[in-house]
Amino acid sequence: MQLPLRVGVAGLGTVGLAVLELLDRQAAALAARCGRKITVVAVSAKEARKERGVDLSRFAWFDDPVALAGSPDIDLFVELIGGADGAALASVEAALAASKSVVTANKALLAKHGMRLAELAEAKGVALGFEASVAGGIPIVKTLREGLAGNAITRVYGILNGTCNYILSRMEMEHLTFAECLVEAQRLGYAEADPNFDIGGEDTAHKLAILTALAFGTRLDPEAIAIEGIKDLSLADIEAASELGYRIKLLGVAQRTTAGIEQRVHPTMVPRSSAIAQVMGIANAVTIDADAVHELTLVGPGAGGDATASAVVADIADIAKGLRAPPFGLPVAALAPLQRAPMQMHEGGYYIRLSVYDRPGAAAAIATRMAERSISLESIVQRRRPGERKKAAESVPVVLITHATYEKLIREALAAVVADGFIAEPPQLIRIERE
Amino acid sequence: MQLPLRVGVAGLGTVGLAVLELLDRQAAALAARCGRKITVVAVSAKEARKERGVDLSRFAWFDDPVALAGSPDIDLFVELIGGADGAALASVEAALAASKSVVTANKALLAKHGMRLAELAEAKGVALGFEASVAGGIPIVKTLREGLAGNAITRVYGILNGTCNYILSRMEMEHLTFAECLVEAQRLGYAEADPNFDIGGEDTAHKLAILTALAFGTRLDPEAIAIEGIKDLSLADIEAASELGYRIKLLGVAQRTTAGIEQRVHPTMVPRSSAIAQVMGIANAVTIDADAVHELTLVGPGAGGDATASAVVADIADIAKGLRAPPFGLPVAALAPLQRAPMQMHEGGYYIRLSVYDRPGAAAAIATRMAERSISLESIVQRRRPGERKKAAESVPVVLITHATYEKLIREALAAVVADGFIAEPPQLIRIERE
Repeated sequence: MQLPLRVGVAGLGTVGLAVLELLDRQAAALAARCGRKITVVAVSAKEARKERGVDLSRFAWFDDPVALAGSPDIDLFVELIGGADGAALASVEAALAASKSVVTANKALLAKHGMRLAELAEAKGVALGFEASVAGGIPIVKTLREGLAGNAITRVYGILNGTCNYILSRMEMEHLTFAECLVEAQRLGYAEADPNFDIGGEDTAHKLAILTALAFGTRLDPEAIAIEGIKDLSLADIEAASELGYRIKLLGVAQRTTAGIEQRVHPTMVPRSSAIAQVMGIANAVTIDADAVHELTLVGPGAGGDATASAVVADIADIAKGLRAPPFGLPVAALAPLQRAPMQMHEGGYYIRLSVYDRPGAAAAIATRMAERSISLESIVQRRRPGERKKAAESVPVVLITHATYEKLIREALAAVVADGFIAEPPQLIRIERE
Repeated sequence: MQLPLRVGVAGLGTVGLAVLELLDRQAAALAARCGRKITVVAVSAKEARKERGVDLSRFAWFDDPVALAGSPDIDLFVELIGGADGAALASVEAALAASKSVVTANKALLAKHGMRLAELAEAKGVALGFEASVAGGIPIVKTLREGLAGNAITRVYGILNGTCNYILSRMEMEHLTFAECLVEAQRLGYAEADPNFDIGGEDTAHKLAILTALAFGTRLDPEAIAIEGIKDLSLADIEAASELGYRIKLLGVAQRTTAGIEQRVHPTMVPRSSAIAQVMGIANAVTIDADAVHELTLVGPGAGGDATASAVVADIADIAKGLRAPPFGLPVAALAPLQRAPMQMHEGGYYIRLSVYDRPGAAAAIATRMAERSISLESIVQRRRPGERKKAAESVPVVLITHATYEKLIREALAAVVADGFIAEPPQLIRIERE
């Protein structure tokens, strides 16, 4: 049996403590699997004296994670501090510079500095594991990098933020507003006090940037992601989706098109019968379309201490076994620059909800604006419910579903509809994603 | 860049040809991923002259796969011949004996000889890859062996036979009988001329045996699997399941219980809302319950040339990269003997369909037989449809759903019900699997 792998863990929040506990609980099994022991020798966190309910006296303590990262007493540095810069970045750089392998759950760090860190790891011949940075306990990084190594991937998409999926699930199931569900998510600890990072789509975008690089062999390019969050979704949209055979999910989608790689995060209508539509609550899911495997879907927990620790420990085990693959599947020098497909060239179906003044000619005018741009309609539903009485100058909701068209055309058509003066509120537009 | 990995492929059926094509199509990407070229240098099949629509002239030809396996010109032997013994076994043994890594899609071979072959691979320090042997293109072997390395797994279960899932899906969707759907599956090439291996559950059992060893770190023990196929399922069962909020799937289930490891293959009622219930047609799915990741589900194609080739090529790529983990995650010497939990001790809910003579006291007698063994009922439905008229001495269908109980007790209760003389046909019994 080889020498133990000596591990230093920086960051002792929920995930850090779960990693310590899991390594402890599975120590014997991991040693047998890896052919060597995995031993945590040192830890670091902001507050040394905080009561964590765990005995930390058997580990060396470092106030400074950078000092831990460079310590000659460790072989592997586990970064669970969080944040794209600051202590997380400094300590990961220090570990790699000292030729130590690194495991991190930090998607913000990866999205921003992943290329440089991967280059550094390659140059030093060490590993950089980040399974836990995307979709929590779902082994999606390993699946893309190794499990589908023989595939040309055409699209990868998924539910990558449990907070948003929880809110959307609750809105549909309980007929609650977005604001009501957000408060509930905060109460349950699923959403942060400042929830904008989740509900604005930024968190999903960080994860998508990583998936894109792995799936298409391109350099990370989070700036090339078109992002829309979920806070403008109304219960009317959720319910209209349901009636039309769809469900609304916040998806991250990366897709190879003739114009380049499209990366986008937005509320999306998915067919209710699709695998991804079945994923409710805080779960995550990722679907991959590829030439050989056709379609593969992974569903599991996207967050939580245990699930994230599962991914962190899998990376640690691979490193203990001696696995030293390039972090993004290919050497950084072999990753292609990401050729961004502009959103204006996005091709797909659209859901459009309009508040239309109930005047003669309104529907005809809208239909004309669509027809002028060869946008054909799958359905058009005027949604006043039976029994509701018409008031003077009232607007009525009209929902359109289009066949596949281009983003540019639909935007032009809607601008023309607005200019015609028939609608009372800005149009709501939600993209449809087909299986 | 290292020397090319020289590959020999034995067996040129659908999968063999798909592997050649995929290695060709992805040659550049694989070379970049693996840091070396993967080059097929030789092939072997039964008939040299058969028209395969592929140019084989660039490969050396071997009439004898054993000679190919031992050839000094190859580093890796890919076995796609099939069958638990014969040429498949002889050639895999020859390759390992000659210190060549092996990749196989052969679940029958693995289930029967996997322990011995893994020992041989370990002794020679070479790899034995079998991702393609279970659930086609789904990377379940890698997920269990590496992705969940830090988890203690409590249960693994899945839809592992696309033919059976296709038949059950069709029965439900089209209200067709088992026999009608089987003929249709044969017409479409989903079922063999002799379908017993699929519909009898044997194929699922081979795959389950492999999953069990990977999930629980035990020795392979296919003889310890309780097997029931799907051929006795009637449309009445499918429809009753549907009305009660369930769907019937042929599952392979391996579960850690206090009595040992339970391995079973049987038609199973799963809640219609579960992830596994959504998997229709020829798809496969595997769900894993574990302490850290909680629940993870993988859904994808369980068969077909392309999907199987995807898994074969992933194994080849890992080997090209130098990965040499023990085939079953642990050295064979560290795998525990499988302690078989007897089916009589299986604990769970049951669906029971009885044809009951419509006589006074029948229902009471049945309920009494259950109550005597403390079996409590979730529901009891007498299923004569409104409008159907009663004939003399007619039997009526009665469907019971029990709460969790033991297989031993339910068998005793049914034997007593039969002995009471109230029922016209042997009882139908289907186990319920909870999420």
